[in-house]
Amino acid sequence: MKFEEYQAAYQRKTRLSKKLYTRSQHVFAGGINHNIRFFSPYPFFVQKAIKNCLFDVDGNKYTDYWMGHWALILGHSHRAVSSVSSRQAKSGILFGTANTLSVQLAETIQKLMPRAELMRFSSTGSEATMYSVRLARAATGKRVIAKVIGGWHGFNTTLLQTVNYPFEYDESLGLIQEEEQFVESIPFNDLDRSLKILETRKDDLAGIIIEPVLGAGGCIPATRDYLIGLQEFAKKNSSLFILDEIVTGFRISIHGAMSEYNLEPDLFTLGKIIGGGMPVGLVCGSKEIMSLADPILRDQKYKRCSIGGGTFSANPATMSAGLSTLNYLKSNKQTIYTKLNSLGEQLRKRLTRLFNDSKINVKVTGMGSLFMPHFLGRRDNNKDKVDNALDVATANQKLLHMYHISLMARHNIFFLPGKMGCFSDAHNTNDLERLISATEAIVESGVLN
Amino acid sequence: MKFEEYQAAYQRKTRLSKKLYTRSQHVFAGGINHNIRFFSPYPFFVQKAIKNCLFDVDGNKYTDYWMGHWALILGHSHRAVSSVSSRQAKSGILFGTANTLSVQLAETIQKLMPRAELMRFSSTGSEATMYSVRLARAATGKRVIAKVIGGWHGFNTTLLQTVNYPFEYDESLGLIQEEEQFVESIPFNDLDRSLKILETRKDDLAGIIIEPVLGAGGCIPATRDYLIGLQEFAKKNSSLFILDEIVTGFRISIHGAMSEYNLEPDLFTLGKIIGGGMPVGLVCGSKEIMSLADPILRDQKYKRCSIGGGTFSANPATMSAGLSTLNYLKSNKQTIYTKLNSLGEQLRKRLTRLFNDSKINVKVTGMGSLFMPHFLGRRDNNKDKVDNALDVATANQKLLHMYHISLMARHNIFFLPGKMGCFSDAHNTNDLERLISATEAIVESGVLN
Repeated sequence: MKFEEYQAAYQRKTRLSKKLYTRSQHVFAGGINHNIRFFSPYPFFVQKAIKNCLFDVDGNKYTDYWMGHWALILGHSHRAVSSVSSRQAKSGILFGTANTLSVQLAETIQKLMPRAELMRFSSTGSEATMYSVRLARAATGKRVIAKVIGGWHGFNTTLLQTVNYPFEYDESLGLIQEEEQFVESIPFNDLDRSLKILETRKDDLAGIIIEPVLGAGGCIPATRDYLIGLQEFAKKNSSLFILDEIVTGFRISIHGAMSEYNLEPDLFTLGKIIGGGMPVGLVCGSKEIMSLADPILRDQKYKRCSIGGGTFSANPATMSAGLSTLNYLKSNKQTIYTKLNSLGEQLRKRLTRLFNDSKINVKVTGMGSLFMPHFLGRRDNNKDKVDNALDVATANQKLLHMYHISLMARHNIFFLPGKMGCFSDAHNTNDLERLISATEAIVESGVLN
Repeated sequence: MKFEEYQAAYQRKTRLSKKLYTRSQHVFAGGINHNIRFFSPYPFFVQKAIKNCLFDVDGNKYTDYWMGHWALILGHSHRAVSSVSSRQAKSGILFGTANTLSVQLAETIQKLMPRAELMRFSSTGSEATMYSVRLARAATGKRVIAKVIGGWHGFNTTLLQTVNYPFEYDESLGLIQEEEQFVESIPFNDLDRSLKILETRKDDLAGIIIEPVLGAGGCIPATRDYLIGLQEFAKKNSSLFILDEIVTGFRISIHGAMSEYNLEPDLFTLGKIIGGGMPVGLVCGSKEIMSLADPILRDQKYKRCSIGGGTFSANPATMSAGLSTLNYLKSNKQTIYTKLNSLGEQLRKRLTRLFNDSKINVKVTGMGSLFMPHFLGRRDNNKDKVDNALDVATANQKLLHMYHISLMARHNIFFLPGKMGCFSDAHNTNDLERLISATEAIVESGVLN
């Protein structure tokens, strides 16, 4: 079967989405709100989402492995969240004041992640990482932030560098060279080269920010040596080690990836899962550093680090959804994390075997419930190493895209094309079997050859 | 009566809040998430919010004039929003994909604000203004953004300058001089001096961003001449005129402050009201400029302007709450805006008269349903001009604070101390009369003399 047939099948079953996309082009730049949510010829438009499924306007039902940018660990519209959210809607979604729920959620997080000595909620992850940079600069009096190539920390201006291939090009029009000079990019999982680069900036190095598992950059776990090496370098040079756990927090384990890797970050960021699906970000850290933001201890604006905040920060709709999610995870942690990690591990193994038995050179990376196949061997002479974002970007992105579109078109299985997938607690082994057999059918159709 | 007696009354009735604040100090820097939400000795903790009232953990019920940072134009937990939010909680709060609700909300906004030829939703206002700056730089190829002294556009790093008095000092530790050089601050409502400053930067001027009513800076409407003058200067010099309508959009009128002032901004930002209380931001503008963000027209990252986005952008919880709010405003616009504007105007007049009859030199500023009293004449030799953020900051802030605390302590009326207040559709003339008579009682008690 040709890829065109898959595309035609997709278009046949998404006629109303096509119309909506035309309407959408008259209100949104490119007909979409978030560039990654676009795929050719047009994305389907979702009307509702229940458990592990998305329902589009044409009545199609897709098994979802995107799960709200990997935020929905309990699945869509989980009763533990929806019941609380319904109740909250009647007693206030935005107080704009101190409130009990925010203290309860923060205390819950603090018990599970003891390095969160003090915190500040924001409304997005991008705000949280921006605040972590400001705090690092305030705490050290230095200016440079190191990030890894392919590291994604949201749309804030400071960290919008070396995110997408080709990494040496600007991420956007409208960025300013004089601002960009204070970010130094280092090669992920290559400690020697990273340390050599860091060495040249160490006198002005405020901090190193890194995701323990490269998320948007291609689902690559950092090696323990790499993370420990960066952490040691930071501590030795009076710079901060900042762990961005927005994707991994409460997903890799209930104590974060930092407990799996046994790390001691000075600051770390959370988001996604801790809001139960509602907008949220959180910057956490040691009392010493976070106290720089204390408006009572530091009663002059230029003596403190001004961090979030914002109108919607600590709003009760987010706080109640997040609290309910974390309480549910806590009460069921054994079952949930065992299941999620087992599904992830099985899938990685079986997908790898399936593709390679069919002589399609694929490596499936991931950790816990996160996974992503990489099609190798066409553009890059049968390489089989996928250690960093460059390896991901130079793998055969077109085949990955075709694989994901084919799953959508004929098998009603949704991955955001080209992106990492994940399991939620709403998935089970039947989903895994369906994904495997759908993949088999696609492989057999010959479209990936 | 002495102020100490008011303070004691506040403490007597907020014992549980005091305990919660102690707990809160163990999780949040300064015991608070957002610095402005702190007031001495501790803020009360809200448990629920209905219509025009906040209910705290000690069982106190306050008439609220803060209204979720002025976002809740229909009041807290309005049935038009809460019923939709309850329903949405059961069919998905985060799709992470294209969705129908976002198109409907955007189309509704576009019909009411025709200059929104294309848009992009973000999750906070701070993100929206950050994107507007990036777009202005991308569109013009220039770097400098002018903002007014006292202008508040959120916590993003770019615009965090000259927000609070003393304006010449940094707003925060952790900001970088090399970044700050690309923001030029101009004196609000002083066109001659502003133009002189802009003239010196015009070759590198990407845009001018301004709130039509200085919000956090002290509730001062810009003069029409000032706004028109800035707009003309921008257009003449190939810079963008950016109107920040996050506070004023759908509050000053259903077509924004821009229609009242008859302005033609190249870009404008919305937030607050358009999310119905849920986290939201929006950057809007001409097709020509916004198309810079189109990922299909501009398929290389360095050829387009990368803007929002984010995990939670265009999420159905926000979209449905916002759509329901705007539809309600549309269906009832005559009644609502007439009432809101009338309450605001009456209050400004009566408060002014009341204070001045008692020989307390107060000027009440505002526009539509926004209002704020300024205590003059103590520190500054009976001046009576409040035209900009410097006038606001050098008025007697302590008296304003005491007035607001006294209202809270003895009269169960809540203003965030020192901040602008607003009416919502959940307020009525009884509230106005109560606020007037409470103010009379406070004046009579002698605490403000």
